[in-house]
Amino acid sequence: MSIRLEKANGLATIIFDNPHCMNVMGAAEIRSLNQLTELLAEDRSIRVVIIRAEGKVFGAGGDIASFKPGDPASPEAIREIGAELNQAILRLHKLPAIVIASVHGAVAGGSMGTMNAADLVVAAKGTRFNMAYAKIGASPDVGNTWFLPRLVGNRKALEWLLFSENFDADEALAFGLINLVVPPEQLKDVTEKLAMRLLRGPQETYARMKRLVYQSDATSLEQQVNDEIEAFASITMTPDFAEGVSAFLDKRTAHFGCKLN
Amino acid sequence: MSIRLEKANGLATIIFDNPHCMNVMGAAEIRSLNQLTELLAEDRSIRVVIIRAEGKVFGAGGDIASFKPGDPASPEAIREIGAELNQAILRLHKLPAIVIASVHGAVAGGSMGTMNAADLVVAAKGTRFNMAYAKIGASPDVGNTWFLPRLVGNRKALEWLLFSENFDADEALAFGLINLVVPPEQLKDVTEKLAMRLLRGPQETYARMKRLVYQSDATSLEQQVNDEIEAFASITMTPDFAEGVSAFLDKRTAHFGCKLN
Amino acid sequence: MSIRLEKANGLATIIFDNPHCMNVMGAAEIRSLNQLTELLAEDRSIRVVIIRAEGKVFGAGGDIASFKPGDPASPEAIREIGAELNQAILRLHKLPAIVIASVHGAVAGGSMGTMNAADLVVAAKGTRFNMAYAKIGASPDVGNTWFLPRLVGNRKALEWLLFSENFDADEALAFGLINLVVPPEQLKDVTEKLAMRLLRGPQETYARMKRLVYQSDATSLEQQVNDEIEAFASITMTPDFAEGVSAFLDKRTAHFGCKLN
Repeated sequence: MSIRLEKANGLATIIFDNPHCMNVMGAAEIRSLNQLTELLAEDRSIRVVIIRAEGKVFGAGGDIASFKPGDPASPEAIREIGAELNQAILRLHKLPAIVIASVHGAVAGGSMGTMNAADLVVAAKGTRFNMAYAKIGASPDVGNTWFLPRLVGNRKALEWLLFSENFDADEALAFGLINLVVPPEQLKDVTEKLAMRLLRGPQETYARMKRLVYQSDATSLEQQVNDEIEAFASITMTPDFAEGVSAFLDKRTAHFGCKLN
Repeated sequence: MSIRLEKANGLATIIFDNPHCMNVMGAAEIRSLNQLTELLAEDRSIRVVIIRAEGKVFGAGGDIASFKPGDPASPEAIREIGAELNQAILRLHKLPAIVIASVHGAVAGGSMGTMNAADLVVAAKGTRFNMAYAKIGASPDVGNTWFLPRLVGNRKALEWLLFSENFDADEALAFGLINLVVPPEQLKDVTEKLAMRLLRGPQETYARMKRLVYQSDATSLEQQVNDEIEAFASITMTPDFAEGVSAFLDKRTAHFGCKLN
Repeated sequence: MSIRLEKANGLATIIFDNPHCMNVMGAAEIRSLNQLTELLAEDRSIRVVIIRAEGKVFGAGGDIASFKPGDPASPEAIREIGAELNQAILRLHKLPAIVIASVHGAVAGGSMGTMNAADLVVAAKGTRFNMAYAKIGASPDVGNTWFLPRLVGNRKALEWLLFSENFDADEALAFGLINLVVPPEQLKDVTEKLAMRLLRGPQETYARMKRLVYQSDATSLEQQVNDEIEAFASITMTPDFAEGVSAFLDKRTAHFGCKLN
């Protein structure tokens, strides 16, 4: 399989594992990713998701060979597989679990969209990013034209899209596209430690934070503060909140994740 | 009183003055803040508002002790006090006066929301910021999930919310969360000088700028440029505009704030 | 003419050429700019637009002298010329061609809006920017209250508007207001090289990128990914896409811009 899913103890890992093809996403990979995201959306035991890749690069984007002249994908075929791709990205972005993209080597084109749909991004120092679409005359997909303006502003989004030049992890960090840059040899370890910290945290609280932050894109301040109070009131009924408050008042570390009997 | 209001010569100062309790906001403080913002909203003589705090920290957020297990606040009580809190924050954010938060020491949880609702933020070098909610398993409030994505982007907003790590004034500045970092011993003086500059400026023009910037979140460019021209035409009828233009053409400093007879 | 338009080989250049008046925009200049943008909007041969200025500064904004006390522009006159100004800015922002503002010296007030409406901005090192409105008690126009919050966030937008202090090209770059800072003596050359690169690129793809990025301000992620796929499918029918894919698979440089017979 080009894409594998591993699950253990509340942690799911999506692994792009087609290193000889630079982890490009063709129709088979898109269908596979969509199925994996359906599994993840239905499995409420999953609290954290890591997306990473085997080989020298995180991902080179779409499978350009599938558009080769003489036997190109038809617009109908593009719409059909595009619908699956969009479903996968929307599911990933809306998971109650926290999604960490752990990237290295190179991230290009559609793979930028997969990365952007994650909640948090850790990158290996030296990772090269490239929007890549303009190089082949393609129009951007995988949500890139929605995520980029929100994360880095229209100026940088257009510059990266129009000129398709490489930019590195430090520039990505400075513009708020990613959260953290680490030495390549520490990428796996740092990513897992972040995942472990999140696994030990208050699950429902995290899911509320994520939902509130993402919904705020389309709400007024009035609506948002109302929704915040509803979420706050609801969360106060959870065992995690009771434990968090007790621990704070007792000046000890909270132990989240215990179930009410 | 835990929160005091001082008013003099067009300047109002909201002072969190409960340093022994790290200026936490309980139900009494929220009601008090809401009353103060009502006074400010009704007093058109107020042109600039400073929000600052006595003691070692600007504010430690909500009163966590009020949620202690065994005698926790009920969801109904949370909704009731939450409505007052929301009203206070909305009033503060919508004041025609320009609001400067002047922060030092530490700003955590709900106090981040009070700070974020201000128009401008000056911070003492060394101030530590912390979203803090995740530590006790609480869902964010005080508009934090609305202000943070707009000011620093979703990546940083989620990172700060999920991990609840301290970040310092320099990081806050680099991400656009605050406007200025000054040595702690100069915080009071710099804040007051900024307030004095604003007090000497064109009041109605400032109020229009603030309203136009904040409304633009929900307008199209077409709508916004129309509203800009209406505001511009309206402002040209003010004595401040006549004085500003005269001063510019005479190559002298403008003296705003004179009333028409 | 205070504003000239040059067109050659798909490149249009708008030149503010009234250096003795610091390229201020009065009613005549606004009408002229509006007419030029109408010409550009109707001329589908234009693929790239450069906006630049002759003299020591890019532009000092509106013609303040036209508001002089005793014979000020009336609100009706402001609304009339404002409608032309708004039409010009909206046309410029919506051109399918990519618009590069190439600025130097000083950019102030309304000239900031002209710059902000461009897709990309190159600035000469040492360029001073100033919102300038507050100095004369004026309310901001030319879309500044819409572009600034989106490009640099509300904090910085309000700071720049309220205090009207100069900020330099490096600060503008750090906050994402502009794309590139170059030595003044290289400004013309770098701008033209960027234009040449864009002229050699896939025209319809660029226009789609620009439209998708700008529309995303008001769309949900769901809507945007659907529109991305429609644009992608449509673009795959263009000769540029066929050439781009062929070149990629042949490991050669793509030659865009050939017409289908």
